[in-house]
Amino acid sequence: MLPLTGLKVVELGHYIAAPFCTRLLADLGAEVIKVEPPGGDPFRGWGAKHNGHSVWFSVHGRNKLSVTLDLKSEEGKRRVKALCARADAVVENFRPGYLERIGLGPEVLHAANPNLIIARISGYGQDGPYRDKPAFGAIGEAMGGLRHLTANPGQSEYPPPRCGVSISDDLAGMYAALAIASACWGRERGNNAGKVLDLDLVSSVFSLMEGMLPEHGLFGWVRQPAGAAIPTAAPTNTYPCADGKWLCVAGNSDLIFARLMALIGRPELAADPRMATNGGRCEHAAELDAAIADWTRTLPAKEAEALLEGAEVPCSRLYDIADCATDPHFLARGMVQKVADPLLGEVLHPAPPFRFDGIAPAEMIRWPGRAAGADNDHVFHELLGEAR
Amino acid sequence: MLPLTGLKVVELGHYIAAPFCTRLLADLGAEVIKVEPPGGDPFRGWGAKHNGHSVWFSVHGRNKLSVTLDLKSEEGKRRVKALCARADAVVENFRPGYLERIGLGPEVLHAANPNLIIARISGYGQDGPYRDKPAFGAIGEAMGGLRHLTANPGQSEYPPPRCGVSISDDLAGMYAALAIASACWGRERGNNAGKVLDLDLVSSVFSLMEGMLPEHGLFGWVRQPAGAAIPTAAPTNTYPCADGKWLCVAGNSDLIFARLMALIGRPELAADPRMATNGGRCEHAAELDAAIADWTRTLPAKEAEALLEGAEVPCSRLYDIADCATDPHFLARGMVQKVADPLLGEVLHPAPPFRFDGIAPAEMIRWPGRAAGADNDHVFHELLGEAR
Repeated sequence: MLPLTGLKVVELGHYIAAPFCTRLLADLGAEVIKVEPPGGDPFRGWGAKHNGHSVWFSVHGRNKLSVTLDLKSEEGKRRVKALCARADAVVENFRPGYLERIGLGPEVLHAANPNLIIARISGYGQDGPYRDKPAFGAIGEAMGGLRHLTANPGQSEYPPPRCGVSISDDLAGMYAALAIASACWGRERGNNAGKVLDLDLVSSVFSLMEGMLPEHGLFGWVRQPAGAAIPTAAPTNTYPCADGKWLCVAGNSDLIFARLMALIGRPELAADPRMATNGGRCEHAAELDAAIADWTRTLPAKEAEALLEGAEVPCSRLYDIADCATDPHFLARGMVQKVADPLLGEVLHPAPPFRFDGIAPAEMIRWPGRAAGADNDHVFHELLGEAR
Repeated sequence: MLPLTGLKVVELGHYIAAPFCTRLLADLGAEVIKVEPPGGDPFRGWGAKHNGHSVWFSVHGRNKLSVTLDLKSEEGKRRVKALCARADAVVENFRPGYLERIGLGPEVLHAANPNLIIARISGYGQDGPYRDKPAFGAIGEAMGGLRHLTANPGQSEYPPPRCGVSISDDLAGMYAALAIASACWGRERGNNAGKVLDLDLVSSVFSLMEGMLPEHGLFGWVRQPAGAAIPTAAPTNTYPCADGKWLCVAGNSDLIFARLMALIGRPELAADPRMATNGGRCEHAAELDAAIADWTRTLPAKEAEALLEGAEVPCSRLYDIADCATDPHFLARGMVQKVADPLLGEVLHPAPPFRFDGIAPAEMIRWPGRAAGADNDHVFHELLGEAR
């Protein structure tokens, strides 16, 4: 028994945002029926394959049922309406207006089920002047304000890097899952809130801009990128090591600073009156960063990390996926799960990012992503009751 | 009437993760009572102040009630138990073990209310070998695998930058809100799922690592940073403009590529057989990126953006907060709200990142963050029924 056991969700999704939303709901126990075109979600063609099957989809499609149908055919439309008639919620991430054009807009779906929660995810949202512009994940980062910040100040040769993952799709999917669970709770209580939900990538990123908007409004401030540093605390930064790896170190309290300077053989800096306060250290952050980097450059990242931990200075290497996969803490917490995938053999899955007492992480991964249409027979005949 | 109207939540939070979680729940309509120490959440001392009040807190504390009490005093403990007795959920982000040490652990809270959902957010989680290490937001990015990726390949002089916002706290807060809403839905349905929820910063970041873990397990692959490019598509990158700003351009379909080359005056590249396919363009991505950058460098970002949009090439400047605050689409969608704040005057708030039909964004911002203890009288006397 999981928290969302009994919740019924239909996914009219493709690529990342809507499928990520429904994967979270499925991890939490919901029955998710993923509706794919006869050729399958084009996402299945992305990235690495093994035995002809998408590797990422083992995670992205887990705990879901998959059916294939042609949304433009009469049979397909009838089945979508029948699926929605028995569902609590449907999630879609087509271009705004597409569902209406093919005759599956909110009015049609609500005619099939007046209580249906309809969550719509798009690049820019269901209205506004940019609604019809083509959207892609990077737009969310760029327009939402995040990409302006992922940069080293004064650096002009290289562009600000991407977050490295499809962060704007992920955020919109997470917000959609939260909005759906909330709307379903409210419906149980008889709340008369809206039943058509409108989420977009750019607002999802914009929502994380901390106090920047009120500060801009009051003072005209425009937050600028600070690289790996924090302008209001020192020393805290990311430093190069002998093996070419980077080490994140936070030495920015008075006591930790003293321990850090002793460890790197620069006790005179801890005793220097210029460095006695965080304010003073911020003024001389470049000098402190240089001293710390002179030390980290002499050691491989793992060794420097161990020495810093021994001195109780908060720090972490920048983990790559191999570090994550073998880290003792992640392993002890069950965050790296071995899953028997009928299509791929044994694969590693990240566990869901939430734990409930009494429920082991392994119990939340009920099955890995299945082939497109693997559940056609079960869903059409047993759940929808169509004659064979 | 909002989706979570009627849900009662107690926040034993400070700084970012738990307060961000409860702000989302409050935006969705929940009654959130934020419990602060007599001096207020130390977060109120962060960042810019106006009239002596935190500017960011206007957003971070909005739609919540604030009470102050000393968790270590008998009166404080009694009030926390009384607040939990009438609540659906409590959210805390103390160091693991702290609530138990002061006599407010899950057993005590469940004695006050057996149905209480208790959500715990921490750096590393409630168990495992790193549970007691000091955690800070940057650790989540570093250990979760994200910071390894926010870098330009081959660049060794500068460290990989932070995401620029407290992304790991935000992600953990979002997951906590989703887990709470789900657990509350399940409780309405009589689901017998766990009532103590354990969320952590490192797993929340790790959950976004796409297909990297199964790919690592099957093939030994370790994803490396790709800067602003996407290794499997070209040309798509972020390019420098004449005014020092950056422009994100996605010209990586055959048709868009041809239009882009025509626009920048390099039609011979579109006709070049080496560039006929995405695969060929990926091989020669550096040549294409140089050609595009030669063009963008001649124009201010806004002009280049307008020309690209005219040619139907997806693109976006990297918005800073001033761009966000004045963008016609954000304004049309009501994403920038003017809020009358009794402590600060008129301030700008980002609207909640989810919309429900029939509910205007302005209706979801019921009031801005209040002074610490502003609701002591109302909560202690009217809600808890204490004698005056």
